[in-house]
Amino acid sequence: MTERLVVVGGDAAGMSAASQARRRCSADDLEIVAYERSSWVSYSACGEPYHVAGLVDPLEALVARTPEEFAAQDIRVHTRHEVTAVNTTSRTVTVRRFDDGHLFDDHYDQLMIATGARAVRPQITGYDLQGVHELRTLDDAARLRRIADRGPSTVVIIGGGYIGLETAEAFHLQGWDVTVVSAHPGVLERMLDPDLSATVVDAMRQRGIRVITDTRVDCIVGLDMVEAVDLGSGERTPTTTVVLGIGSRPEVDLAEAAGIPLGPTGAIAVDSTQRTSVDGVWSAGDCAEVRHRLTGKPANIHLGTVANKTGRVAGINLGGGSATFPGALGTAITRICDIEVGTVGLRMSDALAEGFDAVEGTAHGTTTAGYMPEASPMSIRAVAERGSGRLLGAQIVGGPGAGKRVDVFATAIWNSMTAVDLEWTDLSYAPPFSGTWDLVAIAAREADRRAR
Amino acid sequence: MTERLVVVGGDAAGMSAASQARRRCSADDLEIVAYERSSWVSYSACGEPYHVAGLVDPLEALVARTPEEFAAQDIRVHTRHEVTAVNTTSRTVTVRRFDDGHLFDDHYDQLMIATGARAVRPQITGYDLQGVHELRTLDDAARLRRIADRGPSTVVIIGGGYIGLETAEAFHLQGWDVTVVSAHPGVLERMLDPDLSATVVDAMRQRGIRVITDTRVDCIVGLDMVEAVDLGSGERTPTTTVVLGIGSRPEVDLAEAAGIPLGPTGAIAVDSTQRTSVDGVWSAGDCAEVRHRLTGKPANIHLGTVANKTGRVAGINLGGGSATFPGALGTAITRICDIEVGTVGLRMSDALAEGFDAVEGTAHGTTTAGYMPEASPMSIRAVAERGSGRLLGAQIVGGPGAGKRVDVFATAIWNSMTAVDLEWTDLSYAPPFSGTWDLVAIAAREADRRAR
Repeated sequence: MTERLVVVGGDAAGMSAASQARRRCSADDLEIVAYERSSWVSYSACGEPYHVAGLVDPLEALVARTPEEFAAQDIRVHTRHEVTAVNTTSRTVTVRRFDDGHLFDDHYDQLMIATGARAVRPQITGYDLQGVHELRTLDDAARLRRIADRGPSTVVIIGGGYIGLETAEAFHLQGWDVTVVSAHPGVLERMLDPDLSATVVDAMRQRGIRVITDTRVDCIVGLDMVEAVDLGSGERTPTTTVVLGIGSRPEVDLAEAAGIPLGPTGAIAVDSTQRTSVDGVWSAGDCAEVRHRLTGKPANIHLGTVANKTGRVAGINLGGGSATFPGALGTAITRICDIEVGTVGLRMSDALAEGFDAVEGTAHGTTTAGYMPEASPMSIRAVAERGSGRLLGAQIVGGPGAGKRVDVFATAIWNSMTAVDLEWTDLSYAPPFSGTWDLVAIAAREADRRAR
Repeated sequence: MTERLVVVGGDAAGMSAASQARRRCSADDLEIVAYERSSWVSYSACGEPYHVAGLVDPLEALVARTPEEFAAQDIRVHTRHEVTAVNTTSRTVTVRRFDDGHLFDDHYDQLMIATGARAVRPQITGYDLQGVHELRTLDDAARLRRIADRGPSTVVIIGGGYIGLETAEAFHLQGWDVTVVSAHPGVLERMLDPDLSATVVDAMRQRGIRVITDTRVDCIVGLDMVEAVDLGSGERTPTTTVVLGIGSRPEVDLAEAAGIPLGPTGAIAVDSTQRTSVDGVWSAGDCAEVRHRLTGKPANIHLGTVANKTGRVAGINLGGGSATFPGALGTAITRICDIEVGTVGLRMSDALAEGFDAVEGTAHGTTTAGYMPEASPMSIRAVAERGSGRLLGAQIVGGPGAGKRVDVFATAIWNSMTAVDLEWTDLSYAPPFSGTWDLVAIAAREADRRAR
């Protein structure tokens, strides 16, 4: 008998699941149908700022696979179709087709909920004015690119997270006058301690991007269209374009209404096979929880890496294979104005909040041997557990070559390495790449000293 | 009673040992004297090609610490002094002062032999002609730089190892007409399989460097001065400058003459604390063996990383502390004509020779997300053990950002990770740095598939 898999949400997690299930099951055994609200499936949301910046063209370059390509694999994809309700008793979903408003029910045997996340809306008036944008979907990216192309003007970015800063740089590259407003003491507040984020702020300011930290937005001013942004400092910044970059939260309305249990983070609770506690219902990606490998607790991490991996796990299991998601460390990376930033695991403040007796060691150096012409400043902070010396996290900020060093820490933490063990690991060295002791090892040494 | 430490050889291993010993022992407890044959101590041999290229100036930029700086720490350094003999019974060394030929004996309680390595001389006639150079010491670097500055001419590099290729690029950057002759099917034959090294050869040729592979040098032709190089192919390449880059071997004549046992590799045998089997005699750096973590066997690895680490271990122990060298993986990295190359552990051929039932998986991709304007080809080959899936080695070749990924493999192999475990490790992703699945993970996946 043919089973029917319905996938809700056609980006990384949903389509990874569909593809993996199809690799293991022919269409005779498993029908696969995916519904996606936007006009696009299987696209790189992380690449959107580079389209806005004019660096990646056309928009379609960000699409990994089209509905037609999925159709060739017997995966039917319906874009501009929104699943508005799930009935887990009758095993049906209600679907609205955007183009004509048509509503219909569809049956599932297995349901994959991959509804992703949505932008956090600020608690201020004016956020719904015309001219206030966010950058999540490809449709958003297309819209912001049209605006950017319309010619340089003034844009205010509310929020200093990586999407906000990448968007700020994109408009700056398009010749715009850019202001970023961060409510925090620094920027990239989920990646870096404020002192380390100063390197990013300095680089942005050197390029001519205005960065205002420690300042809230009071309201966005305008009648129908945005006219200005009022800051908590009393300053009014005139602008006709605002981009919200204050984070995202899991899109769980559909699941919640269907009685699919959420976890303590507010995202959908799943086990390590990506099954929810409701029979036949699975979830993966931004809308679902994952286990944090360091805390052992549920976490909700909105990153393409986690979405792809959890989607893949779900798909392998849906296809009759066996896979478990081994947990996440929150490893993340970005590049802002040529400054690379990497983060993994827990910062000191996170670690203390989680009950770890944590210490930190910081090393300042250069991306290459100090005497090389391309040497650029780099700082690495490692967090470790006092006594055991076990590594708990790392932050890296610096010029070209700095960011990807975070993967060394990720691999070390994955293996529960101690700081001293990482210090002595046989890491590579040549003058274009590091000093004889890579700054990774020196930061680990600093953390080890404090952990003893 | 004050003990006396005599250090033979004043570069990475010797001076690391001296510094670490001094950190733990005051001059009242431990006198430290170092003898160095060349004019320099504590310098970056790896940085020398960049001085020849005119990228790093002055030569002194490559010196980490001068004799005067060591003197301020009560470490007496004598340059241009060669230790010509060791008497382990009387605990004395015989020293020749180059400047006046004066010979004298010096007493030691502890002796650190850090004589390093010397260039392999080819078994061909003409290698002793004027105009044939090597690049090991800072004096060599100064000489080659003077030659390079004398104005563009023709140079033949014999050997395609990393020192040879870095020197080739240096002369090319100085406007010279450069020919590299490799006896192997590719270049960097100790780092890369021949097929992967083709990327490096192509990049060099695109710059206009002539690279001749699979060809031996018959002889270097000339009366007093070099006039040409005769190749096994019958070709005669006229040139007045030749640089030998066919590898190095441990400088063990002094130790051997003193009856200090060598190991199976021909380098000085030491335990993990860097002690030889002769009371009071220690060794570290290029002249000493290390334990290879994968084979468990002695190895002789000529890299600054190993020299620094083993020197540090010796110095901690000499100073009354306690340290053991945890072994090496042969992790190495270089950059040739903007192509980055990283290697760690065993290649397939090495692994089979060592008795491992090995498989390999290769992934071809790009250094960044494929749609980014700066995307550059990158290939990663991972070697794993059949059945267990344990990682045994990796090779990486590609554009900016490729090389340092080798440290992820180094950390994984250090922890005896399996390929599948590395595949699922939480590595970072953003479009300027990788695809959603870093090519490291994809190569690990390929190796895992073949290991099953």
